[in-house]
Amino acid sequence: MIYFDNSSTTFVKPKNVQKAVLNALQFFSANPGRGGHQASLKAAMQVEAVRESVAQHVGASPENVVFTSGCTEALNLAIFGSHMRGRHVVCTCNEHNAVARPLEHLKSLDESFSYSVAQQTGKLGIVWQDIERVLRPETSLVIVNHISNVNGDIADVAKIGENLQKRGITLLVDGAQSGGHFEYDMKKMGIGMLALAPHKGFYSPQGVGVLCMADDVHLSPIRFGGTGTNSMELVQPETSPERFESGTIATPAILGFGEGLKFVEQNFDNIAAKLEDLTTFLHYEFSKLPVEIYTKTENTSGVFAFNIPWLDSAEVANYLNEKWGICVRGGFQCAALKHLSLGTADKGGVVRVSLSYFNTYQEVERLVFAIKNLINKTKPSGH
Amino acid sequence: MIYFDNSSTTFVKPKNVQKAVLNALQFFSANPGRGGHQASLKAAMQVEAVRESVAQHVGASPENVVFTSGCTEALNLAIFGSHMRGRHVVCTCNEHNAVARPLEHLKSLDESFSYSVAQQTGKLGIVWQDIERVLRPETSLVIVNHISNVNGDIADVAKIGENLQKRGITLLVDGAQSGGHFEYDMKKMGIGMLALAPHKGFYSPQGVGVLCMADDVHLSPIRFGGTGTNSMELVQPETSPERFESGTIATPAILGFGEGLKFVEQNFDNIAAKLEDLTTFLHYEFSKLPVEIYTKTENTSGVFAFNIPWLDSAEVANYLNEKWGICVRGGFQCAALKHLSLGTADKGGVVRVSLSYFNTYQEVERLVFAIKNLINKTKPSGH
Repeated sequence: MIYFDNSSTTFVKPKNVQKAVLNALQFFSANPGRGGHQASLKAAMQVEAVRESVAQHVGASPENVVFTSGCTEALNLAIFGSHMRGRHVVCTCNEHNAVARPLEHLKSLDESFSYSVAQQTGKLGIVWQDIERVLRPETSLVIVNHISNVNGDIADVAKIGENLQKRGITLLVDGAQSGGHFEYDMKKMGIGMLALAPHKGFYSPQGVGVLCMADDVHLSPIRFGGTGTNSMELVQPETSPERFESGTIATPAILGFGEGLKFVEQNFDNIAAKLEDLTTFLHYEFSKLPVEIYTKTENTSGVFAFNIPWLDSAEVANYLNEKWGICVRGGFQCAALKHLSLGTADKGGVVRVSLSYFNTYQEVERLVFAIKNLINKTKPSGH
Repeated sequence: MIYFDNSSTTFVKPKNVQKAVLNALQFFSANPGRGGHQASLKAAMQVEAVRESVAQHVGASPENVVFTSGCTEALNLAIFGSHMRGRHVVCTCNEHNAVARPLEHLKSLDESFSYSVAQQTGKLGIVWQDIERVLRPETSLVIVNHISNVNGDIADVAKIGENLQKRGITLLVDGAQSGGHFEYDMKKMGIGMLALAPHKGFYSPQGVGVLCMADDVHLSPIRFGGTGTNSMELVQPETSPERFESGTIATPAILGFGEGLKFVEQNFDNIAAKLEDLTTFLHYEFSKLPVEIYTKTENTSGVFAFNIPWLDSAEVANYLNEKWGICVRGGFQCAALKHLSLGTADKGGVVRVSLSYFNTYQEVERLVFAIKNLINKTKPSGH
């Protein structure tokens, strides 16, 4: 099997990630933050060490690093936890449904709330001007997908953050695809909130996400329950992160994430170089074929989208899977807005090839060979 | 170390649970329900097999078994997902803050919503009459904690379900403590919704919970995002479970849960017998000591609460931990309502000893010895 669906989740989880999860189940399996006994404290110390590492990785304060069940819950917390009555939100055409659906739901609940979708004029991704164009006086939050999960378009987050900071508007970055591939400094970049998906670019287990908040961001919780603190109160405690982490947190996945983060930090440049090499090779080979390519040549983030004009993306994906054991994603990749913007909404989406550090040249060569084969087999006259 | 905090989370996770988690990280690490390729389908088949097992275990339809991040999220979904405008909810004095805090939050949001707390008159736990007493014409949901996480009180769920079913009122059972210790048949027992905590009585990893729904229960989702289905729509799909499972689910924890469930089903009677033996022994030994006991002698669920009248529960817990390496929970165990009802709210809570299948007589003996020691050391004259 050749796995090219790493934007969905990275398939290979490094040995140390696996080991950390197993250790959690064997040695740190008490409930962190519940009870003052040694077993609970031991687990809590492990979890807090990961929180500290994440905080350092993104330039946030540890208490403002909130563990969630995934990036989707992190984005839901950022959106529903913000105070939106009478406010306006800007998002971009690159948003995943994990942003678009919460916004649409908010709109259905509250007539005083509205949102606008910034369209992309920048060649490589969303730029500040795209955002500026749709800002309103009542805009309180701007949500920017950092790297598109459809075609890898990269937003100019630093510039956007800088400009929003001047205007006192909070910037929420959806880092689902960029986390692990990008060096964040939330303070310097003017990022108010950053949502991450550890199981993607951090090669970590599924079942944990993160929302990192700047010190001046104050959210309401969206999950209510036991926090191990203020237990005689029927309202959530004020202190973060407990305020947002009701219930038992996912210690095994969190400790796995700790090792995934280390893996990424230790191999940061190698990962970037590998993805650049493979994506460049993919660009080079595909540019010779009669296919439509939706990823810019300059973009080497590892996400690559194309279509064979006379075939549905799902047909291509199925062929690759069944005939060659190659896993790619056809269809819409849970990103309605992006397909509307790319003009691929009524074409059945795109074929997405998404790479990881663990993919090889040989695998990409095989993909190219398979696609050539499919083209030769199906090409109508005139193409 | 002796671990008696199993109501918080069971410490020992069986070998097969650990193995299933590791397998998930090695072989089933694609994203289930995302993409039609073999890697995704393989993971999905594993997850769906667990869903099927859970459905069989509780007597629900598989599509109505929703995986959440934990029992707290399951309860949040059941409560916030129900349509509560102008309605009244009954809960019991045994509810955990994972029920009480969501209800209190709903009340703060919506003046037309209210809830009442049923007090316990039954000796062993909440009985139907306790519920009946506080029902109102506008009551649409009754929430019953099945086994108290503070002292093990057991509600007469079957009788309550039978009566509520006649009245067309939905019963939500918080099975956080009872799951794995109780044979559920949701249909027969008239349970509308059942929330479970796999990492407790199912000896499973932290990071997954379940909400099981009867076929006639229709909730709104509380988490919005990608579902891998209807991706060009900005509203959640109608079909369950996708409607409620936005984002990437916690496959490693879910597959671990599958093995935990098997472990419990294969050892069901042995687990019950072991807990009965150990709790009876605990009762017998403690009944000879000058302590206040909050768990009924007939109750052998494995949760045992007491106080040494002249000591704070936290002092006792700390002493056991520091001097003897015994892990118990002092304080309020995230259950404000229960402590108000037990009269332990202004006494600093209770000391809770909670057992699992993996505890031994020797460990309980050691606890008894340690407590005797503490009593002798601290007993004021007159006691």
